[in-house]
Amino acid sequence: MKAAYYEGNEKIRIGDCVPAPPSKGQVQIRVSHCGICGTDLHIFHGKMDGRVHFPQVMGHEMSGTIGALGDGVDGFATGDRVTVRPLDPCGHCPACRAGHSHICQNLKFIGIDAPGALQGLWTVPVHTLHRLPANLSFAQGALIEPLAVACHDVRMGEVREGEYVVVQGGGPIGTLIALVAGAQGARVLLAEVNPFRLALAKELGLETVNPRAIDLVQLVTEQTGGAGADVVFEVSGAAAGAEMMTKLPRTRGRIVVVALFPDPPAVDLFRFFWRELKLAGARVYEAVDFEAAIQLAASGTLPLDRIVTNVIPLEQLEFGFREMERGGNVMKVLVECS
Amino acid sequence: MKAAYYEGNEKIRIGDCVPAPPSKGQVQIRVSHCGICGTDLHIFHGKMDGRVHFPQVMGHEMSGTIGALGDGVDGFATGDRVTVRPLDPCGHCPACRAGHSHICQNLKFIGIDAPGALQGLWTVPVHTLHRLPANLSFAQGALIEPLAVACHDVRMGEVREGEYVVVQGGGPIGTLIALVAGAQGARVLLAEVNPFRLALAKELGLETVNPRAIDLVQLVTEQTGGAGADVVFEVSGAAAGAEMMTKLPRTRGRIVVVALFPDPPAVDLFRFFWRELKLAGARVYEAVDFEAAIQLAASGTLPLDRIVTNVIPLEQLEFGFREMERGGNVMKVLVECS
Repeated sequence: MKAAYYEGNEKIRIGDCVPAPPSKGQVQIRVSHCGICGTDLHIFHGKMDGRVHFPQVMGHEMSGTIGALGDGVDGFATGDRVTVRPLDPCGHCPACRAGHSHICQNLKFIGIDAPGALQGLWTVPVHTLHRLPANLSFAQGALIEPLAVACHDVRMGEVREGEYVVVQGGGPIGTLIALVAGAQGARVLLAEVNPFRLALAKELGLETVNPRAIDLVQLVTEQTGGAGADVVFEVSGAAAGAEMMTKLPRTRGRIVVVALFPDPPAVDLFRFFWRELKLAGARVYEAVDFEAAIQLAASGTLPLDRIVTNVIPLEQLEFGFREMERGGNVMKVLVECS
Repeated sequence: MKAAYYEGNEKIRIGDCVPAPPSKGQVQIRVSHCGICGTDLHIFHGKMDGRVHFPQVMGHEMSGTIGALGDGVDGFATGDRVTVRPLDPCGHCPACRAGHSHICQNLKFIGIDAPGALQGLWTVPVHTLHRLPANLSFAQGALIEPLAVACHDVRMGEVREGEYVVVQGGGPIGTLIALVAGAQGARVLLAEVNPFRLALAKELGLETVNPRAIDLVQLVTEQTGGAGADVVFEVSGAAAGAEMMTKLPRTRGRIVVVALFPDPPAVDLFRFFWRELKLAGARVYEAVDFEAAIQLAASGTLPLDRIVTNVIPLEQLEFGFREMERGGNVMKVLVECS
């Protein structure tokens, strides 16, 4: 069994996995697949060194099989196929007490603040587990976490059947948001500038647009009879996205901010006033979003497999990061961990 | 009967009122009092010359008595004491069709896009009228419009009893928001930098703070047991207000943008993501807000009279604007129009 250790300064070392025996309330999982995401790439680039204590095993988008149970674990057995909701809230802060434990003010994110899934054997609290149905492959199971992000975002956007939705940004999360909103009966337009991502989204059956090539405001205005979009998801994280997001919605339309903006961009607050727009930030997921994601994936209605562009062995993790960072022909990269 | 005409370039001319006879569906009102507000000052400063066609009579915060009825006016009689909700929506744009006629995409705001109330006799559509109860003075009646703004803002902020509310900006609208939120059972903290406004708010029984003198984030954090505010109203229109508004709310807390930001300020979208904050723009009012304002004013629970710092004759309108622009010891200025 191997593990991938981040050792700072864009260095990944593949070493032996040192399994943590499951203590009370924990399970040990034999990890099958683990996806890598923008946050992992951020860690790899050293942007989160203040929070990550290396050597650190990253990874939190995974699937696997329970290999061992700690004391006091009920409801799960060895051999169960599972995925993990990698949140470990404190349970006593104001956010937890208000029922928002997924954004706990002392949240431990497993895979960032604690060892992650890019290893053969991974030990986590049992409260993080969700069961994978038999008809989901392990590769599909590793997509449940990002799909749960999308389900959460669409839920926070209160997307209703028949609504007109614009998704700004066609990476894995933006694409999944577009698919989930479409599955809920919305008309979805995906705005993206990367030709590979545009082509892939089109293959997935999404209506796409390159906002550098056409006048997006005019298009949305025309397509909505002069009203504007019901919901805009800002997933690009670009200043141009922050500028565009207020131009598109109808009166009382909604904007959901999914992307991370390290620096505060200029935001047209006058437009919020003028059209009585609403904005909501959306972060990670709650248990209900994981269950929704699993149900949606198991229904077979989404072209999930086609989002996976690369499946690589653990030893090639750095190659995966390099592919992501150069913005090449890559969407979701999965790593085989055992 | 006199009228005050804005003639461009900070020029006000007091001339004879040329009454418009009420045509079908209109009433002519003998105007008693008319308040002046930030928008009027903006017009006076020439900032809205692209929209205002001078010579123009401004004013839209008024009270008066119906003097004449046009054809087809039912439900009102001469002598009725009224105030006006100065919105004239088109009725056919997407916003109107969606039930948001108060922010109609072709909205005619009476007093900006059509002649206003700073004259002895004013003719308006009957659909704009709200009746003033007998126990409200005409001076109080002229405060219904800004009070309706505050009722709308508090409604858009979904303020509930027992919630902790911060109002950023203690001008007339901010002060009224603070009073309305307090009347609904919220604990309210009013943040303002102007010493006169701070002192007046204190006299009105409001809890006040000068954010330049103390650490507002620390204060709110302490007062809410580490959680943060439930709702923040941004009424300052300052870049510092746009920066502060995201620092104060609890997880899933709400921000209501009431102020006008001519230029897009920097907004910490990361904080929206991190705490799943919500933001709503709020503009003018709906009929229900006018009715709520009238009921609240008639209940006698708000110290409305003490918000009026100046009552001046029409001839002194320019003096009123000068007092407002120099930020002196002035809160709400009322003009006697007949």
